[in-house]
Amino acid sequence: MTDAEKERHHVVVVGGGFAGLNAVRALRRAPVRVSLVDRRNFHLFQPLLYQVATGGLSPADIAAPLRSILKRQQNVSVLQDEMLDLDPLARTVALRDAVLGYDTLVIATGASHHYFGNESWTELAPGLKTIEDATSIRARLLGAFEEAERCDAAEREELMTFVLVGGGPTGVELAGAIGELARHTLRGEFRRFDPRQARIVLLEAAERVLPSYPPRLSIAAERSLRRLGVEVQTGVRLAALDHRELTLERGGKTEQLRAGTVLWAAGVRAGPLAALLAQKTGVELDRQLRVRVAPDGSLPGHPEILVIGDMARVEGRDGRPLPGVAPVAIQQGRHVGRVLRDRLSGRLPPAFAYRSRGNLAVIGRAAAVAELGPLRFSGYPAWFLWLFVHIMNLVGFENRLLVFVQWAFDYFTRRRGARLITGEITRPARRDASGG
Amino acid sequence: MTDAEKERHHVVVVGGGFAGLNAVRALRRAPVRVSLVDRRNFHLFQPLLYQVATGGLSPADIAAPLRSILKRQQNVSVLQDEMLDLDPLARTVALRDAVLGYDTLVIATGASHHYFGNESWTELAPGLKTIEDATSIRARLLGAFEEAERCDAAEREELMTFVLVGGGPTGVELAGAIGELARHTLRGEFRRFDPRQARIVLLEAAERVLPSYPPRLSIAAERSLRRLGVEVQTGVRLAALDHRELTLERGGKTEQLRAGTVLWAAGVRAGPLAALLAQKTGVELDRQLRVRVAPDGSLPGHPEILVIGDMARVEGRDGRPLPGVAPVAIQQGRHVGRVLRDRLSGRLPPAFAYRSRGNLAVIGRAAAVAELGPLRFSGYPAWFLWLFVHIMNLVGFENRLLVFVQWAFDYFTRRRGARLITGEITRPARRDASGG
Repeated sequence: MTDAEKERHHVVVVGGGFAGLNAVRALRRAPVRVSLVDRRNFHLFQPLLYQVATGGLSPADIAAPLRSILKRQQNVSVLQDEMLDLDPLARTVALRDAVLGYDTLVIATGASHHYFGNESWTELAPGLKTIEDATSIRARLLGAFEEAERCDAAEREELMTFVLVGGGPTGVELAGAIGELARHTLRGEFRRFDPRQARIVLLEAAERVLPSYPPRLSIAAERSLRRLGVEVQTGVRLAALDHRELTLERGGKTEQLRAGTVLWAAGVRAGPLAALLAQKTGVELDRQLRVRVAPDGSLPGHPEILVIGDMARVEGRDGRPLPGVAPVAIQQGRHVGRVLRDRLSGRLPPAFAYRSRGNLAVIGRAAAVAELGPLRFSGYPAWFLWLFVHIMNLVGFENRLLVFVQWAFDYFTRRRGARLITGEITRPARRDASGG
Repeated sequence: MTDAEKERHHVVVVGGGFAGLNAVRALRRAPVRVSLVDRRNFHLFQPLLYQVATGGLSPADIAAPLRSILKRQQNVSVLQDEMLDLDPLARTVALRDAVLGYDTLVIATGASHHYFGNESWTELAPGLKTIEDATSIRARLLGAFEEAERCDAAEREELMTFVLVGGGPTGVELAGAIGELARHTLRGEFRRFDPRQARIVLLEAAERVLPSYPPRLSIAAERSLRRLGVEVQTGVRLAALDHRELTLERGGKTEQLRAGTVLWAAGVRAGPLAALLAQKTGVELDRQLRVRVAPDGSLPGHPEILVIGDMARVEGRDGRPLPGVAPVAIQQGRHVGRVLRDRLSGRLPPAFAYRSRGNLAVIGRAAAVAELGPLRFSGYPAWFLWLFVHIMNLVGFENRLLVFVQWAFDYFTRRRGARLITGEITRPARRDASGG
């Protein structure tokens, strides 16, 4: 680094997801030097994570190395490291391996699962946020079918019950994909039972699935889910969870349900750095621990610290907080570029304004729902739109091509190409070890 | 299962690798029922594992679910389970979850790494046999480059030294692939050092690499390796290994070498079931713990137990044991079909005879060596042959297509599509946490 470079305005971006990566890219022509810090060496295309969890895609199909994406952007240096501490007065962040000084700090480390005080459920009902979550859920799902082939009929019923807690987009996508797995992909592969017997239960506390979508689309989604054999239960809440034993609450009454696999899709909250920011700068957090930022995305009293993506609480024109989805994060990332350019040339940056292009959720093969401005549609057209948007947004040409080949193949054969049970093999021996 | 089916001759095959899977397939028209037991739910195409370890392919590209492969073979039932014990008198095997009776037992559980008494090296110099080995080696290799971007120059030299112990086909393929990674794939992606500075050292105790190949091909392989920046050292043995500190012995003298990453490709031995067989049936094992089988593949005194694949010691026409490679295992698997058909119709089965079609090893892009009957060739023709043989042998149409797309893309761009560092992030903090 030359002295002239050292004197340049230094932007430290923490987190290489949709928000952070787009912030870095938006700074490619700005007179700044950028350090991008991420614990992982790759950018993850989270909207397709449920495909990895159900064996449709490989992890590398939806992840691209940050270095490779940013290879040609000479003003950025990528560090695989983790932010541990912040000194807002000295303007430094402590990483595991170094201390970095910053002129502007951009925090974009996203969200994790929210169990609303029931943190003991983490192991019993895992959520889906990382590649490791996805491969471990994949091992659980496929492992349940493997175990059902070994065990007796009584235990099989329990093993073949899969419960999804939460009927938002993630719960709907996962339930649909498990339905396809059981009814189509695995059909004919077992000798002692029919995988189509699997019971897939989607629980939603509100009166309909996809409660943030227009009612017409919720109805279309429920119909598609039922066609895949998914049992949709609305107006029901998970009150207690023990090993394989669920207590459900519906209209003041409780009931029991036994299930071999329970997955969590009921809520997220900002990651642990939000608490650090609150402690060090006094910024307020909302109930989901998101940081209440100023209209331009900065912290009140600390214009040099910006928070973007799922960790930020920003209100839309209707006064409701913007949802934690990729388009919001991408636009916030781009806004960082605008903010810095304006500030460096002495102008006041504008407030962030989200331009929604619509909402999309997929249920399965040729089944999706879409809200596009005044249009609401479902079925084939929504599914093609979903496919197009997601494949076009995958970073890297090769990823797009591979995913397209895999999907085209899956579509015609209903096969899933990445059905591996990997990782530690920790399976307890059954009580009675003399089957046959 | 009907009574008639229960009375059928029951063949239990343990292990779904090349040997076991081919044995099961060879029995598809035989009047038997087959149980295939494997700890994993997939068949692994081991010859391409080094591509996963170096980020070229995803695990699912080289693994196909056993159930999916055998879906249409109605006389086989697949069990994901592990063989723990054997009672040769009662003719039963104890699995973790069940006890299975057998009429014929086929053991094909392969080999694992052989550290020749230095078992403490397992962690320091991991070998490559499983998908988990491959993803963990991938994380080590890529992690070394990431760490080199964070650390100071003195430590960088050590981190950027990669040592491969063993110059057989696995060591040669890995060294070549690491050479390509450092010199081509990662080029231009780091800001504080040039990854082409990486030092890749291949150690071989014999006087040349690929000692089981004709000398001309060893020379061609060494030349290709040098072109990729690999330092080939022959006539040298690893005498001691401490954390990052290697003691090498060469012609009676010792020397020291420091390296951030050491990988093991120096030897294999039969897996733990060989010892169980020896204990229960009195069969003899050789120095690599392989089972000395009768000419038809069965255990002396136990014609109903067959051992095939890397676990069996079978001598070729020249009196030397056959190598532990896929073609041998495949032919032994098929031979099991012949043995059972002959026995069930009262004929005496023939001895197993290996028909070698040649040897192939790849070094990198457009660089390979081949021995095909009287022909020996290297460079482009050998590489095309290698590509063709390996892609055609991948189980499942989709795997072939995906791997082909990925390779074609890699060839033109020298990119590697599966460069993910996944798994537990356990990285010790550096001594001095105030870098810059």
